[in-house]
Amino acid sequence: MRVITDKGDMEIKAVWFEHNMVRMIDQRLIPQEFSIIDLENYLQVAECIKNMAVRGAPSIGAAAAYGIALAAINDDDLTEAAEALRSTRPTAYDLFYAIEHMLRSIELGDEPIAAADMYADQIIERCRLIGMYGASLIEEEARIMTHCNAGALATVDIGTALAPIRSAWTAGRHIYVYVSETRPRLQGMKLTAWELYNEGIPHAIIPDSASAHFMRDGVDIILVGADRIAANGDFANKIGTFDKAILANSMGIPFYVCAPLSTFDFSLTSGDQIVIEERAEEEVTMVEHIRLAPQHSVALNPSFDMTPAKYVTGFITEAGILPPTEIDRVRKFRLEEASILD
Amino acid sequence: MRVITDKGDMEIKAVWFEHNMVRMIDQRLIPQEFSIIDLENYLQVAECIKNMAVRGAPSIGAAAAYGIALAAINDDDLTEAAEALRSTRPTAYDLFYAIEHMLRSIELGDEPIAAADMYADQIIERCRLIGMYGASLIEEEARIMTHCNAGALATVDIGTALAPIRSAWTAGRHIYVYVSETRPRLQGMKLTAWELYNEGIPHAIIPDSASAHFMRDGVDIILVGADRIAANGDFANKIGTFDKAILANSMGIPFYVCAPLSTFDFSLTSGDQIVIEERAEEEVTMVEHIRLAPQHSVALNPSFDMTPAKYVTGFITEAGILPPTEIDRVRKFRLEEASILD
Repeated sequence: MRVITDKGDMEIKAVWFEHNMVRMIDQRLIPQEFSIIDLENYLQVAECIKNMAVRGAPSIGAAAAYGIALAAINDDDLTEAAEALRSTRPTAYDLFYAIEHMLRSIELGDEPIAAADMYADQIIERCRLIGMYGASLIEEEARIMTHCNAGALATVDIGTALAPIRSAWTAGRHIYVYVSETRPRLQGMKLTAWELYNEGIPHAIIPDSASAHFMRDGVDIILVGADRIAANGDFANKIGTFDKAILANSMGIPFYVCAPLSTFDFSLTSGDQIVIEERAEEEVTMVEHIRLAPQHSVALNPSFDMTPAKYVTGFITEAGILPPTEIDRVRKFRLEEASILD
Repeated sequence: MRVITDKGDMEIKAVWFEHNMVRMIDQRLIPQEFSIIDLENYLQVAECIKNMAVRGAPSIGAAAAYGIALAAINDDDLTEAAEALRSTRPTAYDLFYAIEHMLRSIELGDEPIAAADMYADQIIERCRLIGMYGASLIEEEARIMTHCNAGALATVDIGTALAPIRSAWTAGRHIYVYVSETRPRLQGMKLTAWELYNEGIPHAIIPDSASAHFMRDGVDIILVGADRIAANGDFANKIGTFDKAILANSMGIPFYVCAPLSTFDFSLTSGDQIVIEERAEEEVTMVEHIRLAPQHSVALNPSFDMTPAKYVTGFITEAGILPPTEIDRVRKFRLEEASILD
């Protein structure tokens, strides 16, 4: 991704391996500060997934892949490392997928860092394909709404929901993006707006609750990411996604979920089986370390919600754009891919 | 309303007249600070409406009524005073209604302060009736969702949307309130949670975008206020109300609008004619004077949205609970009332 800094523009990924370290952008500090974290062991990686220095399902997956690779080259116990990394966050499927993938690759004799690099590169290539397929849905002068950050920060590079947006913009289409701020952690306002600014893409931040107002005003397409997709097409994504899906449905606005195949969890027959992470209430009651809520009031802070498949116009994946009824094709695609890999 | 302070509990209104001054709770400081503002002329009142020291359609109406009364006893030009007060905020109908009412009362020879006091007292009495009618809809163990602050702070005392909640609680019903935080100004988190805490009513603050998640989890009734209601039942209220109305409709949850008759504007045939106030983008991009958005990103900040009548189960007014199709009864009720007043 392109990042504009005081010292000029640079091209950078959200997570990568260099000088025997896992390096990542500290996403908690964007947009106020641009800072790189260096990690030397899997425990540090696990901590960064937990405290959300790295977030977004595919980036979490890549970080975990590098965490396993670090454990392998440091001669740590891989079972313990896998367990520590798995226990960081419960909802994103990519985390579990990446760990399994890495354990299998190492067992098959792959060099750990090369395997993790390949995993991260595959995410980027998948995002590129998602961008290519998704851009076909974005018309000249399109007004697009997105939620949270499903951008390059969330996916090593390019993004899932932001991939079609970048691709349409690069192709010269005049687009405009409504960035839903995404309380409580404001990943839309802080991260997505930052990415769009860095790319020069016209956008405006809106309060999450202004979604219906602006949809009626004229939104052509809604693009969101996903943290886990069940076999029937129900999916979990950042809290507020379900709201937007219902609103889009009621107003006849196409609603697309952008995700690589690594986000599909075929072990779940429906979204009811997805574990929704509850995070600390202080994320809601405090902003920048200042308490805004009354001292004695509590807050509820589900980090994700589950949107039933019936609200999804289509899933934009590296295997093409699929309506929920054709998800089974994804499974076959992934099985083929796995057999090529073996 | 009951307020718990360091020096013990007290009973207080949001706006009142005392010692030749208009006095009001500074709602910008709640819940961190409890402070009373004293105003000696209509310009100060206009400023407090504009800067939202006083907010909520009926409280704005009461403040404006006292503003006109101050102008009258200070021998200011009433036309100028009315103009200054009218130009503060465009959406709340009560503001315009109260100013007209006061000008007419003074013209008819009423003592200005007594007329303003009566106007404020009538709001409270109307809220009491809204509470009585609305409580009949709240069952034992009901889970209620509300948005923004349509409480005592917004209506001099008691509240509109909070009136049925207070009334059901006082009647001994075990209820639970989901308080939607209401970005960008967080009136739900800051004001409604504070009022509920002061009354001892169980509640939890939720991000606005967690509405669909908790509605599916089980919400029995949604109660909101209104800033202006058109003759066909379309209404304007705090941004995010329209979102909740669509969500409630899609899940079959009863959605009620609580408002005194002074909020109905029969000069508007539909909600499309309601002027929606746009406020400063810094309300979105900055929290507690700290900028959270990227420096070069803009934000859009419509203060209200317009919800079509078809989403409203009923309007809870001092004249009873009316489906949108029976709003004409409100007009007759108000005409009768006006003829009694004359």
